Amino acid sequence: MTYCVAIKVDNGLVFAADTRTSAGVDDVRSYSKLHCFDIPGERVFVILSAGNLATTQAVLNHVWRDWHNPPATVSLKSVWHMFDAAEYIGQLSVKAQHEYSHSHHVDFRTTLILGGQILGEDPALYLIYPEGNCITASAETPYLQIGESKYGKPILDRALKHTTPLQQALRCALISFDSTIRSNLSVGMPLDLLVYHRNSLEVPVGYRVCEGDAYFEGICGHWGAGLRQLLGELPAPPEAYWG
Amino acid sequence: MTYCVAIKVDNGLVFAADTRTSAGVDDVRSYSKLHCFDIPGERVFVILSAGNLATTQAVLNHVWRDWHNPPATVSLKSVWHMFDAAEYIGQLSVKAQHEYSHSHHVDFRTTLILGGQILGEDPALYLIYPEGNCITASAETPYLQIGESKYGKPILDRALKHTTPLQQALRCALISFDSTIRSNLSVGMPLDLLVYHRNSLEVPVGYRVCEGDAYFEGICGHWGAGLRQLLGELPAPPEAYWG
Repeated sequence: MTYCVAIKVDNGLVFAADTRTSAGVDDVRSYSKLHCFDIPGERVFVILSAGNLATTQAVLNHVWRDWHNPPATVSLKSVWHMFDAAEYIGQLSVKAQHEYSHSHHVDFRTTLILGGQILGEDPALYLIYPEGNCITASAETPYLQIGESKYGKPILDRALKHTTPLQQALRCALISFDSTIRSNLSVGMPLDLLVYHRNSLEVPVGYRVCEGDAYFEGICGHWGAGLRQLLGELPAPPEAYWG
Repeated sequence: MTYCVAIKVDNGLVFAADTRTSAGVDDVRSYSKLHCFDIPGERVFVILSAGNLATTQAVLNHVWRDWHNPPATVSLKSVWHMFDAAEYIGQLSVKAQHEYSHSHHVDFRTTLILGGQILGEDPALYLIYPEGNCITASAETPYLQIGESKYGKPILDRALKHTTPLQQALRCALISFDSTIRSNLSVGMPLDLLVYHRNSLEVPVGYRVCEGDAYFEGICGHWGAGLRQLLGELPAPPEAYWG
């Protein structure tokens, strides 16, 4: 499995992805699930992936070839709207899955998140379903998740608004990962992070959080201790609760 | 869907279950998923259920008939070990599912939690799989969940030990429910609660938490505000995280 989350707040975008890929517990590998394309000053795209690794790699290979092959009819270089970029990637995904559809024993599906910004538009986030269609993040739902999403969803639901500062959104994504990694073995370190500042129009350097990272371990410990303290401070239940 | 959690700590057991049953979003009903049997001073059993409602009701009907029909070869009245009670219920469940197995279009499975105590034994908790086999809670894993379990798992993993006081375990179960209800529409109020004190050997009166319950709403509000504050107090990420 996989866990990826992308957050869209007024000041920019936050992307976070784990790196664990497994085909059974005895076939575990580490792959980056975060991929970037940009023309600085004009457009920046970040793609997160969850699902069949071969399908994902086929999609990324097509995206890369169209990017570097100017005669391509459509590419991330040629589109002028983020929605068109999401539709283009959705079509590549459907095509990649279709090529192997003669086998019914394997799940070839992949679910993708596309985020970024094109000059003249606001930053945007899209979740691209295996069927090729997509939904966008919104002011009311300022995040999108793919993969093993349930463990880390409550903290996003409680803490995120579109007005949340970028730094708070980043901490929220890290805590969402900590909850997921503790409860599910199929999601694992290291984590890839990208913080995109609105209108910067270039791919940030990004950061890889490895096992033993002092800041990540520090906030996870702080968070766990804080939760236990908070639980202990909740008022005692009325007598009837004990009946 | 459903969400039920049962916790076993040194001083007793906590049971909590939602009451929403749905066969599609336009067929939502309210059913208790918490069922009790006892002989005060000798034995007490609590059953929580998640899955096919007809199968669950067939199992409970059999348990009830065997309880009230003394010639029954085995019943919850006749067993002398909690493990035997779990195996008995597992067999009833497999039998109830098997009766309808000619249809392949419906999922007849049910997953159950059995908790309680028989005089001379410690309190015990078992999770009974649709296949009829079972696992017990332990000192390292002092809780069992059935149904929509992922949203509410992180707080249990972080806060529960076998030494946790019964009252703290109850608050932890309530927060686990709050996280689940916020993130998943298929789990809904009211909630049924039971707190069993070790060696009391009778079914407690229990408590139903209804929509608008002052204590439940109070601790949920307190918890949400506390989490947001805790997130805001985490140290700021180092420069490299922003690259």
